[in-house]
Amino acid sequence: MDHSHLIETRLSSQELLKGHFLHAFRDTVRLPDGASTVREYIIHPGAVMIVPLLQDAQGELRVVLERQYRYPVQQVMIEFPAGKLDAGEDLLVCARRELQEETGYTADQWARAGVLHPVISYSTEFIEIWFARGLSLGPRQLDQGEFLDVFTATPAELLQWCREGLVTDAKTLTAALWLQNVLSGAWELTWQNSPSADNSR
Amino acid sequence: MDHSHLIETRLSSQELLKGHFLHAFRDTVRLPDGASTVREYIIHPGAVMIVPLLQDAQGELRVVLERQYRYPVQQVMIEFPAGKLDAGEDLLVCARRELQEETGYTADQWARAGVLHPVISYSTEFIEIWFARGLSLGPRQLDQGEFLDVFTATPAELLQWCREGLVTDAKTLTAALWLQNVLSGAWELTWQNSPSADNSR
Repeated sequence: MDHSHLIETRLSSQELLKGHFLHAFRDTVRLPDGASTVREYIIHPGAVMIVPLLQDAQGELRVVLERQYRYPVQQVMIEFPAGKLDAGEDLLVCARRELQEETGYTADQWARAGVLHPVISYSTEFIEIWFARGLSLGPRQLDQGEFLDVFTATPAELLQWCREGLVTDAKTLTAALWLQNVLSGAWELTWQNSPSADNSR
Repeated sequence: MDHSHLIETRLSSQELLKGHFLHAFRDTVRLPDGASTVREYIIHPGAVMIVPLLQDAQGELRVVLERQYRYPVQQVMIEFPAGKLDAGEDLLVCARRELQEETGYTADQWARAGVLHPVISYSTEFIEIWFARGLSLGPRQLDQGEFLDVFTATPAELLQWCREGLVTDAKTLTAALWLQNVLSGAWELTWQNSPSADNSR
């Protein structure tokens, strides 16, 4: 499909802000009609979200979730575990690291589902979506200044919370779409064994 | 549920950036353990997304979508119509305005589905989710510098694009979760008639 009537082209770029976390730019761009305008946006390294599938003692499927206070929205949010990519970090290495640091779980098998862009109007951020299964619980290693509760729920409970407005985090809502369709059999995942702990060192 | 062991409290706030679009702050906050840290975030007025349901000539249900180049991610994205709230603007007024401006459609009936938070780690943004039906097509009124294509698809096509990675916009993926569950009958919407054109002036 020809999208040339929609494309914007960079003419120049200016750094606006280099904060502790936020890194903002203002670019002057050429619009499809030849006029120019400015676009302001945040540079983000990208992130990985994990949908951890847990078989409980009765064989019932549960997912591992977190409750975390999110200062910008001034609310405790229900979320799937997620975290930013370190520079040059492999996606699966990041997924395994974040799952273990935040929840204590390691997984026997992993499957990449897809990717989402949370805020296409003003950030470069992408979030890779990975499923994990065959979970074993060990100790958590939270970052300094990181406070969060880990808990589990059934997929039906999670979907009810999405409907009722108790889950409003976009990445977690996107994960719920994936979870619903994977569990119904409509969408298939391709599972791979986790690299052994020895190989990952 | 007691969340006091998670809550962060503002100690002070500093404006970092007042751009044409981006408005950034750095707050110093008290963490649950009494230590302090900084949180940087974008102030956003909030937005409304519309899921427009269209009955085609054969009686088949289709949804109205847009293709728009999103400069921060350097891609043409498939999205549901959406737009920012004007200061003090009513949610439904904004939904009707954005639908008409971007697509030319007006709707007989509206239903609020819920809300999503696209980027809880560094923006105050929320996006209200509204469904629209009983559509009539009139002229578009795009903002200056706004370039987008309007097209329609079946819900099955949209869901396939979500699975295949052709749709990666988080608000549109969230809308797909709502659409799938509304169409299956699992999630119910409460429809209201649109205020008449006369009353809305």
